[in-house]
Amino acid sequence: MEFSSKLLERAVNEMSQLPGIGKRTALRLVLHLLRQPKEQTTALSQALQDMRNTIKFCESCHNISDFKLCEICANPNRNETIICVVEDVKDVMAIENTSSFKGLYHVLGGKISPMDGIGPHDLNIETLVNKVKQGVVKELIFALSSTMEGDTTNFYIYKQIQDYKVVTSTIARGISVGDELEYADEITLGRSIVNRIPFETSLKL
Amino acid sequence: MEFSSKLLERAVNEMSQLPGIGKRTALRLVLHLLRQPKEQTTALSQALQDMRNTIKFCESCHNISDFKLCEICANPNRNETIICVVEDVKDVMAIENTSSFKGLYHVLGGKISPMDGIGPHDLNIETLVNKVKQGVVKELIFALSSTMEGDTTNFYIYKQIQDYKVVTSTIARGISVGDELEYADEITLGRSIVNRIPFETSLKL
Ligand SMILES: [Zn+2]
Ligand SMILES: [Zn+2]
Repeated sequence: MEFSSKLLERAVNEMSQLPGIGKRTALRLVLHLLRQPKEQTTALSQALQDMRNTIKFCESCHNISDFKLCEICANPNRNETIICVVEDVKDVMAIENTSSFKGLYHVLGGKISPMDGIGPHDLNIETLVNKVKQGVVKELIFALSSTMEGDTTNFYIYKQIQDYKVVTSTIARGISVGDELEYADEITLGRSIVNRIPFETSLKL
Repeated sequence: MEFSSKLLERAVNEMSQLPGIGKRTALRLVLHLLRQPKEQTTALSQALQDMRNTIKFCESCHNISDFKLCEICANPNRNETIICVVEDVKDVMAIENTSSFKGLYHVLGGKISPMDGIGPHDLNIETLVNKVKQGVVKELIFALSSTMEGDTTNFYIYKQIQDYKVVTSTIARGISVGDELEYADEITLGRSIVNRIPFETSLKL
């Protein structure tokens, strides 16, 4: 791609670093910004930088938060004895959207994937195991996507906490195997939480 | 969509102002930036702002440029007697990619579209007509997309300059009718420039 301007080229190159944004799409987005008032570009740039530089992660559940504790963890009406274990922040948003769950979350930050060099210590697993050890948690719901990596992660955590008095369950597989949680419709996702099954049972399926 | 952070929400909202970027895609892009080093977000924001605040448009052809005259207009090896008239900057880039054209360009900045409230005076038509009046230009190649708006624009310009000694042509319609220039493959687009036909002939097709 031949650019008539270095400024344009740099903007397109940076934009095309984003996942799923090729050079052509980046050019289209950047030219769009050029046609809009300067204020739009300023607002976008400022919002991205403010977010990146000042956002926090909840000290308890690792969800994205503007405070030390996220709104969910800080809410006294949530049931702290049930923890829904998810891969990432998008999954918390997807489940919250269903209004079917009133417990707390634990965001792992990914799943165990030796292929991608992600081991248990790259994830927020230790803080989860510690929560279980403290004895307040009565149930862990595994809500990872039902891929091999998700299953491996579930099983790894299960092994760590099986000697403690805690019930483990997985969300019902109304969601087709291999699908990402965030693409499930609200009803399916909500129902799969309500109809969760004991994790031990899921191992025999 | 329920956000656990105002900073995140603002970033997603700004990102989803871009054309073709829905809330879900915006969230995905923004969460990606959160997983990357801060430097990536800074580089993107800075590149967009630098571009938006300091980019220029070539005083002669209205192409995007870092200088008063773009590299094409400033190049003494380009043939200033042939001008290829295009809708926007993306079209200049697409034609330059084919290496089939050694004249200059004129970027209209759109096409006449009464439906969208775009009239001749919203486009860079006057500067083009003035160039023709000065007598240096021997040929105008209309390379607008072959839609009703493109045809209207071609014809409007044609009417303005038909009393002057200038040949008008349109690029050969190897490109399917209604298609955008920028999506044509290089060979088709290159050939359509080489095989251009007189504009008067194209009116009878
Ligand atoms: Zn939290
Ligand atoms: Zn120029």
